[in-house]
Amino acid sequence: MMQKPLEVLKEYIRFPSVSTDPAYTEGMIGARKFVTGLLKQLGFTVEVVETDLHPILLADRIGDLAWPHVVIYGHYDVQPADPFALWTDDPFNPIERDNRLYGRGAADNKGPTIVHMAALSRVFEANPNLPLNITYIIEGEEEIGSPSMPKFFDQYAERLSKADFMLVSDTGSPNSEQIVITTALRGLVDLEIKLRGSKSDLHSGIHGGAVYNPNQALMEICASLHKPDGSVNIPGFYDDVVPVLEWEREELKRYPETVESYRALLDVPAFYPANGLNPLEAVRFGPTLEFNGIGGGYQGEGSKTVIPSKAFAKITCRLVANQDPIKIQAQIIDTIKERCPDGVRLTVREGGIAEAYLVVPPDRSNTPDDQPASLARAFKAADSAIASNFGKAPIYLREGGSIPVISDFKKRAGLDALMIGLFTPIDNLHAPDESFSLPLMENAISAFEAIIQEIATGK
Amino acid sequence: MMQKPLEVLKEYIRFPSVSTDPAYTEGMIGARKFVTGLLKQLGFTVEVVETDLHPILLADRIGDLAWPHVVIYGHYDVQPADPFALWTDDPFNPIERDNRLYGRGAADNKGPTIVHMAALSRVFEANPNLPLNITYIIEGEEEIGSPSMPKFFDQYAERLSKADFMLVSDTGSPNSEQIVITTALRGLVDLEIKLRGSKSDLHSGIHGGAVYNPNQALMEICASLHKPDGSVNIPGFYDDVVPVLEWEREELKRYPETVESYRALLDVPAFYPANGLNPLEAVRFGPTLEFNGIGGGYQGEGSKTVIPSKAFAKITCRLVANQDPIKIQAQIIDTIKERCPDGVRLTVREGGIAEAYLVVPPDRSNTPDDQPASLARAFKAADSAIASNFGKAPIYLREGGSIPVISDFKKRAGLDALMIGLFTPIDNLHAPDESFSLPLMENAISAFEAIIQEIATGK
Repeated sequence: MMQKPLEVLKEYIRFPSVSTDPAYTEGMIGARKFVTGLLKQLGFTVEVVETDLHPILLADRIGDLAWPHVVIYGHYDVQPADPFALWTDDPFNPIERDNRLYGRGAADNKGPTIVHMAALSRVFEANPNLPLNITYIIEGEEEIGSPSMPKFFDQYAERLSKADFMLVSDTGSPNSEQIVITTALRGLVDLEIKLRGSKSDLHSGIHGGAVYNPNQALMEICASLHKPDGSVNIPGFYDDVVPVLEWEREELKRYPETVESYRALLDVPAFYPANGLNPLEAVRFGPTLEFNGIGGGYQGEGSKTVIPSKAFAKITCRLVANQDPIKIQAQIIDTIKERCPDGVRLTVREGGIAEAYLVVPPDRSNTPDDQPASLARAFKAADSAIASNFGKAPIYLREGGSIPVISDFKKRAGLDALMIGLFTPIDNLHAPDESFSLPLMENAISAFEAIIQEIATGK
Repeated sequence: MMQKPLEVLKEYIRFPSVSTDPAYTEGMIGARKFVTGLLKQLGFTVEVVETDLHPILLADRIGDLAWPHVVIYGHYDVQPADPFALWTDDPFNPIERDNRLYGRGAADNKGPTIVHMAALSRVFEANPNLPLNITYIIEGEEEIGSPSMPKFFDQYAERLSKADFMLVSDTGSPNSEQIVITTALRGLVDLEIKLRGSKSDLHSGIHGGAVYNPNQALMEICASLHKPDGSVNIPGFYDDVVPVLEWEREELKRYPETVESYRALLDVPAFYPANGLNPLEAVRFGPTLEFNGIGGGYQGEGSKTVIPSKAFAKITCRLVANQDPIKIQAQIIDTIKERCPDGVRLTVREGGIAEAYLVVPPDRSNTPDDQPASLARAFKAADSAIASNFGKAPIYLREGGSIPVISDFKKRAGLDALMIGLFTPIDNLHAPDESFSLPLMENAISAFEAIIQEIATGK
């Protein structure tokens, strides 16, 4: 039987499990051991899967193979707490204030992990023989891009593919009353173009007029990558884009944000969405091509009359379901090569890619029979459990961000994900004064109790 | 009577007169006193004109007001010598090697100054009553942009306007046998545009698709400032451009550089000159708009999926004669404002400006009567003195760089300039191992002897 969930969460946060910083190795070990203890207490068999950096916890509670089988995914690592000076209190000594628990990892992802475990604990207490197979995967490198997960899939995909679907709470909801069930994540394509003109920077008086300034060539190439309407100007870019369905637009209307409140939040003078989407739709339903960083020539104060030798642009795309990131990356690179003038030399760094992910809720799917019955039960259970515990039915919504590991679970092991968002914008993820709402935590535990019960025993 | 010119130059270089660095105040004082001594020795009355930083030396040798009157301009300050480690020897302890004198300031501008003074010394020795009025202006802030010269002009323009023209040797020649007489300098316009979108950097997954990425807006605006043929795409930009005359193209053909040798020197894959000029013409005869520095968003290694809040572009134009920098600056800013999308906020830093300068050699002028007779004599004397002392007639050529003080002398005091280039590309101006050719020095002294004699007494 688990302790009071809030106390367990506090204890968990006290292990400073910053995966990116070797100075926190002890915190990583501590958090891992702590979670291992919780899993064992819940009756799981825990395997510590070694990686090149931080081990992955792989835990099983397997009974009859005919039972439904769910994978629960989470991570025990957290973002760095720097800058410490901007925290009201010690990030690794959690404090309750105004119905919130403050501390690094409170919302991402330690709070949601404790929600799941507390719910399991209550369900198991009432029904120790619950007919549900569960595989827990809690990794320690999510905050540094999950570099060990591909190898993990190589090793365990077949075993995982025996499960029916996944439960994940590593996405967001707009506030602690309105829960979102995330139905999609965008994919990612990363690349960088570097241009070189002359062998070194040139005096703009002596040589200006003869050479193609790499800054100019870079900006001309990059400016050609969008059309005036804001859409991406790369042949074939939109070919495979999955359409927005009417029910998705309707769900979004229930989202507690207006275009104007969103504009005020970001403090932009105007929005610039493409393809006839409104701004709230565009960040969820449309693919993008963004210039994350550009640079070339003099970067200091004032002016320096130089023609730079080099310029660069760092480009990433967010892709929607059905777009193939490998194909898109190649299309972008081909287009850039074609448009690069012969006055400069082009080199391209091909960065990482990630596939988009999309799950159609079974009750809205045209082909519901393709999904496991337990997934349909889980969605249905989540819908009613969230409605009754939070007072509002969940909104089913695609999200603009990317969680590559989710599409990998789908691709490598065939598992769809029921993603119930337990953090909100005011939780300050990745920022100082991260916190987790205690009322949301309590409601979520009750909701997950009902969901788990229903997956196992519902008809 | 002056000492051996080489020894005088060595002594002059030993004063480390770095104007930009307060640590060299003593070097500045030493160089100033040294030049003052030389001027007095030559019979000049020297006035030390105080400024906010380094005083200007204003020296006169005035006899009969009916005599021709020439202003000689130079500077006693030098560029910093850093990085010292890249010098073969101490930059402030000049060393002779392979017929060159190495040391900071050897070519820019101490060598040319000693050339002028040695020539004067020889002329005065032969003819102490030379019928020539001379005003010497040697400033101490040329290497930091001559900030005190505008105030100096306010104070002395009327007095200077009584002179006929200027003699300057602060421009370049291709090598120590082929001297260039510079007939024009380009003007300059400086400005910076800064764009701001959202109030802080945004997550490209959560918000990508809704907002106008400032990097994108910046690149689209900047890309619109040139046409595909490389010409500047700003209404009115070329309206006042002075045409290239046939004799100027012919002169350039004598310049010891081919398009291919120039391309190899810069190591660019191809040139990109606009307006039908070849690359060697374009850097001298055409105006430009260059992006000296651009930046926005993530600048580190690899990728970061951010939509930046801000982006900037530092822009300078080189203008040719007749283009009004104030008008051009306003045209650029108006164009950028017009083309700036409403998804971002634009601010503009209006930087400094400088007018272009052009003197038509009197024998090629359509209106030679507008120029003082002594200027015509000076050009003619320079032509034959250079031909006989260097073995090759000078090339009359516009230069791509800017020396704002030259156009100011024209604008404020009506003085045209005879600019005889005494440094060459291998002299390493502003770089380690600066040096000055000793054969060029000796030839130049003889040439200037003849020129000065001819200005004073020629018919």
